[in-house]
Amino acid sequence: MSLQRKKITVVGGGFTGATAAFMVAQQELGDVVLIDLARVENPIKGKSLDMEQAAPIQMFNAKIKGTSDYADTANSDVVLITAGVARKPGMSRDDLVQINQGVMKSVAKQIATYSPNAMVIVLTNPVDAMTYTVLKETGFPKNHVIGQSGVLDTARFRTFIAKELNVSVKDVSGFVLGGHGDTMVPLIRYSSVGGIPVSKLLSEEKIESIVNRTRTGGAEIVNLLGDGSAYYAPAAAMVEMTAAILNDEKRILPAIAYLEGEYGYNEICLGVPTLLGKDGIEKIFELDLEPVEKEALDQSAAAVKDVLNILT
Amino acid sequence: MSLQRKKITVVGGGFTGATAAFMVAQQELGDVVLIDLARVENPIKGKSLDMEQAAPIQMFNAKIKGTSDYADTANSDVVLITAGVARKPGMSRDDLVQINQGVMKSVAKQIATYSPNAMVIVLTNPVDAMTYTVLKETGFPKNHVIGQSGVLDTARFRTFIAKELNVSVKDVSGFVLGGHGDTMVPLIRYSSVGGIPVSKLLSEEKIESIVNRTRTGGAEIVNLLGDGSAYYAPAAAMVEMTAAILNDEKRILPAIAYLEGEYGYNEICLGVPTLLGKDGIEKIFELDLEPVEKEALDQSAAAVKDVLNILT
Amino acid sequence: MSLQRKKITVVGGGFTGATAAFMVAQQELGDVVLIDLARVENPIKGKSLDMEQAAPIQMFNAKIKGTSDYADTANSDVVLITAGVARKPGMSRDDLVQINQGVMKSVAKQIATYSPNAMVIVLTNPVDAMTYTVLKETGFPKNHVIGQSGVLDTARFRTFIAKELNVSVKDVSGFVLGGHGDTMVPLIRYSSVGGIPVSKLLSEEKIESIVNRTRTGGAEIVNLLGDGSAYYAPAAAMVEMTAAILNDEKRILPAIAYLEGEYGYNEICLGVPTLLGKDGIEKIFELDLEPVEKEALDQSAAAVKDVLNILT
Amino acid sequence: MSLQRKKITVVGGGFTGATAAFMVAQQELGDVVLIDLARVENPIKGKSLDMEQAAPIQMFNAKIKGTSDYADTANSDVVLITAGVARKPGMSRDDLVQINQGVMKSVAKQIATYSPNAMVIVLTNPVDAMTYTVLKETGFPKNHVIGQSGVLDTARFRTFIAKELNVSVKDVSGFVLGGHGDTMVPLIRYSSVGGIPVSKLLSEEKIESIVNRTRTGGAEIVNLLGDGSAYYAPAAAMVEMTAAILNDEKRILPAIAYLEGEYGYNEICLGVPTLLGKDGIEKIFELDLEPVEKEALDQSAAAVKDVLNILT
Repeated sequence: MSLQRKKITVVGGGFTGATAAFMVAQQELGDVVLIDLARVENPIKGKSLDMEQAAPIQMFNAKIKGTSDYADTANSDVVLITAGVARKPGMSRDDLVQINQGVMKSVAKQIATYSPNAMVIVLTNPVDAMTYTVLKETGFPKNHVIGQSGVLDTARFRTFIAKELNVSVKDVSGFVLGGHGDTMVPLIRYSSVGGIPVSKLLSEEKIESIVNRTRTGGAEIVNLLGDGSAYYAPAAAMVEMTAAILNDEKRILPAIAYLEGEYGYNEICLGVPTLLGKDGIEKIFELDLEPVEKEALDQSAAAVKDVLNILT
Repeated sequence: MSLQRKKITVVGGGFTGATAAFMVAQQELGDVVLIDLARVENPIKGKSLDMEQAAPIQMFNAKIKGTSDYADTANSDVVLITAGVARKPGMSRDDLVQINQGVMKSVAKQIATYSPNAMVIVLTNPVDAMTYTVLKETGFPKNHVIGQSGVLDTARFRTFIAKELNVSVKDVSGFVLGGHGDTMVPLIRYSSVGGIPVSKLLSEEKIESIVNRTRTGGAEIVNLLGDGSAYYAPAAAMVEMTAAILNDEKRILPAIAYLEGEYGYNEICLGVPTLLGKDGIEKIFELDLEPVEKEALDQSAAAVKDVLNILT
Repeated sequence: MSLQRKKITVVGGGFTGATAAFMVAQQELGDVVLIDLARVENPIKGKSLDMEQAAPIQMFNAKIKGTSDYADTANSDVVLITAGVARKPGMSRDDLVQINQGVMKSVAKQIATYSPNAMVIVLTNPVDAMTYTVLKETGFPKNHVIGQSGVLDTARFRTFIAKELNVSVKDVSGFVLGGHGDTMVPLIRYSSVGGIPVSKLLSEEKIESIVNRTRTGGAEIVNLLGDGSAYYAPAAAMVEMTAAILNDEKRILPAIAYLEGEYGYNEICLGVPTLLGKDGIEKIFELDLEPVEKEALDQSAAAVKDVLNILT
Repeated sequence: MSLQRKKITVVGGGFTGATAAFMVAQQELGDVVLIDLARVENPIKGKSLDMEQAAPIQMFNAKIKGTSDYADTANSDVVLITAGVARKPGMSRDDLVQINQGVMKSVAKQIATYSPNAMVIVLTNPVDAMTYTVLKETGFPKNHVIGQSGVLDTARFRTFIAKELNVSVKDVSGFVLGGHGDTMVPLIRYSSVGGIPVSKLLSEEKIESIVNRTRTGGAEIVNLLGDGSAYYAPAAAMVEMTAAILNDEKRILPAIAYLEGEYGYNEICLGVPTLLGKDGIEKIFELDLEPVEKEALDQSAAAVKDVLNILT
C-alpha cells in the first residue's frame, strides 16, 4: 500500500512533454502517463512505446502510457503541465495569454477532477500567469501549484559561466528571483563557482553580458532552431523539481510561488527561493534585498501583474 | 595525455542523432560533436546548446557542439552514423538504398579523413547494407565498423515479454540473429526471464505473436507516429554499444559484423553475437543452429545480399 | 502522505549491516535506522555519522541513524536482519543454530511490535532456518518474510564465469535453487552468457569447478580474511532485494520462501525463484526439474530440515 | 590504445583503502589494485574478491586485485595513499609523524618506480606533511601530488548545516582553507545554502558551534567508534578527487597543494581552492582574504610548518 509506485502525469505531448516523460522514467521516479488532447492520440502512443523500448537498454523500470483520456491520469502524485501554444509571428502577447489561459483552465479542471491531491508543476508560458491560472482554477492549496522558471534560468546562467571559465558545471551555482526570462532578477552576489563569488572570477562587463544572455536564453534557442523552442533543459528543470517533491528531498530551488505578503507582494505568482519537499512548496525564503535588487524585483512583479490583468 | 576526454561524433542531427548525442552526454562518455550537412547549421547549434543547458541540472559534464564542419570532428574515438533519409511513400526500396548509399559514401570519406582510428557504429537503414558500405568506403579494419540492429530488436522483444508477464525488464533477456526487422531470426531457446526460458512461461502462440510484433516493431511505431520513426530506443541501443567500446566493457551484444566465413557466409555484414570492447568487435560467437534456425538465417542473409546487389 | 520517505531498518551493526545501510543510502531507497543491541551504542552512532558525511560528496539524500533503541525503528517499511554470531572454532553447528535462533526470536518480537507491516529480509546463517524462525516468531504473512541466499550465490557464480571468459558481469546470468552454500542446486541449463548457455562456452569440467567454487564461496572468503566473513556482496544482495520491494520492481530473483506444497515441500523455507514487488514475495515460480536436479533439491531440502529439527 | 581502461592503485588495505577501492569500482572509474605490505596478503585478496562479487548485483564492471606485490600496480593512472598508522594512546605527535613519514617514503619510492606518470592523492595523516613527503620523495611535478583534506572537511560542514536546517545536502556548499582538522580555516562568507549565505539562515553562535564541530569532526568519530577512525566520508572524498582527474572534470575542489608563493607561502603543502582535471592540480585560486582570515591561515600554515620541521 505505502509501497505503491508513484504516478506522474505529463500534460502535453510535444517535445518538452515527451522529453520530461522520458526523464521521469529514466530516473525511475514512477510510472508516467503522457496525455495530449490537442493532438491525435496515436503519435503520443508511438512516442511512449518507443520510450518504453529504451527501458531494457538503460535498465529502468517504468511504464509510460500515451493517451488522450484523462481517466488514465487518475490519482497522479504529480502533474507536469507543458500544454499550450507558443507565440507565433503575428500573434499578440494578449492573444497568447488568452489562448493559453483557456488551455490551463481546461487542464486544471481535469486535474482537479481526477487527481485532487496532486502536486502540479507548470511550464506553459507566460509561466507566472499560467501558474496563477492553474492555482485559481484547481482551487488547490497554494503550496501544491508550482511554476518552473528559476531552475531553467539558473541552469542557463551556470552553463554560460562554466563555459566562460572552462570549469565543471557541477561547481557553478546561480541565483535568480522574479519573472521568467526578460524580467528575471539575478542576484550576482549569491552566484558562485566552487564557493568563490563570480565577481572575483569575471569582470563586471563579462558578468553583465552573461546575465543578458541568460535573460534572452529562451529566445536565443528559438532563433537558432528557427522552428520551435528549447525542450531539453526545460524538461530537465521540471523533472528536478518533480524528484524533489516525490523523494521529499527538501531541496532549495527557485520556483514560482503564490505570494501572500512575501517580498511585499500579494495576489501574484512570482519566482522566489523555495524549499521543495513532499508537501510541494514547504517554505518561501525571504531575503534582504539591496535597493537596486528590490527595484528590479518590483519591475518584474509589475510585468507579471500586467499579464495577470489580461486574464479573463 | 592518457586522461584526455573521449570524443564522440554523431553524424545526423535528426531526432535519433540528437537523442543519441544527449544520451552520450548524460552518461558522461565524453564530449560530443553533432554534425549535419544536410541541414542548416543553426538548428543543430540550437539543439546542442539546449542540451548543454540541461547539464547543470542533471549534473553531467560534457561539451556538446553542433556543427556542419567536419574539421570539428577530428580525432573522434567513436562515430555514430544516423544520417540518411527514411523511406517515403512512393520511394522504391532501390531508390532508398541508393540515396543512403550516397550519404554513407560521403560520410565515410569524411570520417576516414578526420578520424582514421575511430570506431564507427551505423544505424542508417537498410542497416546491414549501409554498414557494409561504410566498411568498404572507409577501408577501416572490419572490427572497427559495426552496425546496430540486434540491441534494438532484443530491446523490443524484451519490452513485449516484460509487459505480457508484468515483470521487470531488467530480468528479461532475448537473443536475435540475422537482418534487422522483418528478417531477424529470434533464438527463442536463448531467451529467458530471470533465467527461466520464455517457453516455460508463455504459450507458443503468445511467443510467436510477440516475435512477429518485434519483427515489425519499427513499422508499428512509424504507423503510430504518422510522420517519422522511432528514435528513443534506437539511440539508446547505439549508445549502449558506444559505452561498451569506450569503457572496454567486454559486453556480449548482438551487432552487425562483417563476416569472413562465420556461419558459412562471406562478403556480407549481418547480425551476430559479438564481444564489444576497446577494439570494437573483438570476437564473433558462432553458435550451433538447429536446422530451422539455420534456414531462417539463410533467408535473412539472402535478403541482405539482395540489398547489397543494389549497391553501386 | 503518500510521498512520505521510506524507512529501512538494518538490524546488526557489524560489517554486513553497516555496508547494507550505506548501500541503501547511496541508492536513495529511503532513510535508514541501524540498530544493534549486542554492541555498545556509540560505535554504531559513529559509523552512521561517518556514512552521513559521505552524502554531500556522493550527492545522496538519506538520514542514517545509529541506535540501540527499537523505538527508533517504528513503522519501518523494510527490515534487514544481519544480527547473530558467526560460527567460531569449537562451536558445533547445533550451538550456532540455537544461539542465532535466540537472536532471531528477540529481533522478531521487536519488529512485530514496532513495524507490524514491514517486509523482512533475513541474512543471518543458517539462513534457511533463520528465515523460518523469523516467520514463525513474527507471525507475519509468509510473503513478508524473505531469506537472502540465491542472489549472493548467483553473484558469485556470475563473477567466476565472467572472470573465466573475460566478459562483462552485466551479461552473465545464473540460476540456483535450494539451500545456501554447500547444498545449493545450480541449474546450469538456465545459466547463460549474453543469452548463450554456459555449456556452449565452457567445458563440463570447468563448469563443475566453478559450481564447486560457488558452493564454497563463503568459506573461500572466510579463509582468506582469516577473521570474519564476506560482507560487500552479501550486503549488495540484500539491498537489491530491498530495492525490488520498495520500488515495486517485479524482479525475478531467487529468494528463500516459505513453501506450502511448491516443489513438493511443506513447512520449510527454501531457495526458489520468486517475483519480488511491493507485496514481498508475490509469486513462486515452479519449474520442471530433471530427475538429477530434483534429487539434488531433495538433498538440499533434507539438509535444511535437519537444521529446522534443531530449533527449539 | 586510447581506449585502455584506467588503472587505479589504492595503497593501504584498511577500512579507508578498501572502502575507497570499492567506491572506485562502483563508479566504474577503472580497474583497481589494492595493495598492502604491512598486512598479510590474504585478507586483502579476500576483501577484493568479496567486492568483485558485488559487481554483478550492482552492475559495475571493474576488476579489483588484492596484492602485496608492487609489480601489480605498474602504470597506474592514479594512486591513492591511505597507508600508515593512526595515533595511538601514548604515541607522541612526533612519533606519529616519523612513523608515517617512513611509510610515505617507502610507498613513494615504489610509486615512482612502477607508475612514474601517476597522479597521487594522499590521505595519510598528518596529511599536509605527508603530501609534502610524497612530493619530495617521488620527485613528481607539483601538480601530480595532491592531498585530501578540504573535501572531507567541507562534507562534514555541509552535513551539519543540512541537518540543522533540515534541507538537502545537495544544496549546501562550504569552503575551507588551510590545514586539516583543528587548524582548518572556514570561509563562512563563501558558504551557502541554495545560494543563500549561511549567515542569513543561522545565528552566529550556531555557525560557530558547527565550525567547531567540523574542526573536531574526525575526533568526534574516533571517540564514538572507540577503536578506529572515520572511513566512509574520507574514502568518498578521495574518490571524488580521483573522478575529477580521471574524467578531466575541471572541478573546483579544495585540495592540499604545494605552494610557491601563493597566499604568501613557500615550501609547504597546504589546503587551497584548486582546479582538478587531467593534469592534477591545474590551477590554484588565490582569494582576497580579510585580515582575520589571513591571520587564521597564517596560524594554520605555521602549524603545518611545525610538523614539516619534524620530518627527517
